Amino acid sequence: MSVTVYGDSRSGNCQKVRWVAERMGVDFDWIEVDITSGFTRTADFLAINPAGQVPCLVREDGRVLAQSGAIMLYLAEGSDLIPEDAFDRAKMLEWMFWEQYSHEPAIAVRRFQKVILKKPESEIDPYLMNKGRRALGVMEMRLMAREFFVGEGLTLADLALVAYTRTAPEAGFDLDEFPAVRAWVHRVERELGLDPIGDDLMVEA
Amino acid sequence: MSVTVYGDSRSGNCQKVRWVAERMGVDFDWIEVDITSGFTRTADFLAINPAGQVPCLVREDGRVLAQSGAIMLYLAEGSDLIPEDAFDRAKMLEWMFWEQYSHEPAIAVRRFQKVILKKPESEIDPYLMNKGRRALGVMEMRLMAREFFVGEGLTLADLALVAYTRTAPEAGFDLDEFPAVRAWVHRVERELGLDPIGDDLMVEA
Ligand SMILES: N[C@@H](CCC(=O)N[C@@H](CS)C(=O)NCC(=O)O)C(=O)O
Ligand SMILES: N[C@@H](CCC(=O)N[C@@H](CS)C(=O)NCC(=O)O)C(=O)O
Repeated sequence: MSVTVYGDSRSGNCQKVRWVAERMGVDFDWIEVDITSGFTRTADFLAINPAGQVPCLVREDGRVLAQSGAIMLYLAEGSDLIPEDAFDRAKMLEWMFWEQYSHEPAIAVRRFQKVILKKPESEIDPYLMNKGRRALGVMEMRLMAREFFVGEGLTLADLALVAYTRTAPEAGFDLDEFPAVRAWVHRVERELGLDPIGDDLMVEA
Repeated sequence: MSVTVYGDSRSGNCQKVRWVAERMGVDFDWIEVDITSGFTRTADFLAINPAGQVPCLVREDGRVLAQSGAIMLYLAEGSDLIPEDAFDRAKMLEWMFWEQYSHEPAIAVRRFQKVILKKPESEIDPYLMNKGRRALGVMEMRLMAREFFVGEGLTLADLALVAYTRTAPEAGFDLDEFPAVRAWVHRVERELGLDPIGDDLMVEA
């Protein structure tokens, strides 16, 4: 399989796809897209992904796949990143949907406004901080007695969740309040061969 | 398999689970939860689902599964609601993630504020109307030359998307502007044996 991936390297949703593609040894070309440049709203790009967002994957036959969760599941099929047990697989999907619904719209959006758009704190909706802290609290409870989100090892649930959790400090969240989450972030970073959070902020403050 | 489902019948996310369970012939008990009653924030309910939301499914062995998308995938496993082809399956997942990220947070949230909380139009964030219209436009493009979202027949993508699209008129959206979407809603309703939209609004205006 040889594919093209459109992505912005500062975006956690795009990083998720890169991590899975690299881990699976997929032969891929990465086309770097600056999401603040307006390119995702051009007719050329909308012809590829009508939803106007990255990441998206284009196969050699021209077929296109969007949504980080769907791309990860597609690339990782048959690997140990997806549990074999039906219930564990469903739990992994639960956390992936939860990330997109209750985590990313708070933590990634706050980070985007603060770090990429460089909005002052006073212009950022306080609701995002509350929602993000609630999400980190739910993760803390889950991780109190476990090493990974599902089963005994790394799955796509961990990759999906770590992408923006490791950038939570950039977004203004204090991970010292969530020690199990913090330890898990380092654990997943080690599995992925990434430098620890804080040492390689994706975006310079 | 015998399971218990906690759900509010006025909620599209909960309906999705009911439709799949019925279609699959799953033996299930439905526990009706009023999401405006505060029950989802009680310690009893948080012990079941720490994310504090319905739908959630409890198995006979006590294990719990949340997130409508994950529950649908779990219950429908091995059926024709999930395409066999790997790419089609990934496309189905793409639309399910897209629904949770770009559709539900606009159309379902607007409907909740308008119909369940009975907020006057002036108190509803205008952003929701814009985002919802954009989502309906993306669906219209997809459906212009197709009967269903993926492949030739009904899949979980259609069920996930129809749940709140059929309530879009309640939420203040005009489906006459999106004729392919409107025709598809009726098509899916027929497949599910539901009365046509408008004749059985889930919530009285
Ligand atoms: N739910 C989507 C979210 C994708 C998304 O939000 N992409 C952003 C970058 S992280 C984007 O392309 N923004 C540019 C735009 O919306 O124009 C996924 O998981 O892939
Ligand atoms: N992403 C979740 C969303 C679930 C959700 O939003 N549930 C709402 C009803 S539609 C709820 O339980 N609200 C009550 C609350 O948040 O306390 C899913 O797909 O299941």
